[in-house]
Amino acid sequence: MNKKRGCNAERELLHLLSKQGFSVARVAGSGMIAETNCDLFVSNGRKKYAVEVKISSNSKKYLSKEQMTSLIEFSKSFGLSPIVAIKFLRQGWWFIHPDKLNTTGKGLAISFDDIKKRGKNFDKFIK
Amino acid sequence: MNKKRGCNAERELLHLLSKQGFSVARVAGSGMIAETNCDLFVSNGRKKYAVEVKISSNSKKYLSKEQMTSLIEFSKSFGLSPIVAIKFLRQGWWFIHPDKLNTTGKGLAISFDDIKKRGKNFDKFIK
Repeated sequence: MNKKRGCNAERELLHLLSKQGFSVARVAGSGMIAETNCDLFVSNGRKKYAVEVKISSNSKKYLSKEQMTSLIEFSKSFGLSPIVAIKFLRQGWWFIHPDKLNTTGKGLAISFDDIKKRGKNFDKFIK
Repeated sequence: MNKKRGCNAERELLHLLSKQGFSVARVAGSGMIAETNCDLFVSNGRKKYAVEVKISSNSKKYLSKEQMTSLIEFSKSFGLSPIVAIKFLRQGWWFIHPDKLNTTGKGLAISFDDIKKRGKNFDKFIK
């Protein structure tokens, strides 16, 4: 995704979660380090997540298998739960475990209809 | 410390630890977020740390109590061990738990002589 839009989305989610009392750290420098394996570290002391942040300008989001595998392994290494946060156009933030994404030919995807069934919206996520 | 020198030190330590097989993430934007509570997340799957990175151009390093308290609380929230990594001039990297720092009048400090006794050098840290 567009780098600036991606950064803005990460910051927006960081601030939304911080306001709810979560400890949040944004990971620096995708591009600088060979592979950045997540965008945010998020914890409320009880629930601890490594979050990959995405935005979708339509009703479906495609993701790469490699990136999700890397997210899962990275999370495991830190004892965190992997989660994908997607901001769908005019639908706000939604959260889903990478295991719950659909497999397409080469990659992974999730539609807004499916994330409504299998994922959580912001209010449910922060509970 | 000087922002650029600080960033360079963080990146140097990131690469040194990555080479040793650690998963490392650098935290973005001190200054941008109200408080950045650590500089690096470091894990080898077994040992997991939130690392505050410092450099010292002489034989003593002063640190603020507030920053160390914030490091400790932030680490706890993510289930990580807090650690201060200090690069002493011509002495390489040394690692110490914030509880092992000396109390000065208003703040905290550690001399190179003391970190040799109470801390770990790079080789011991990565073991």
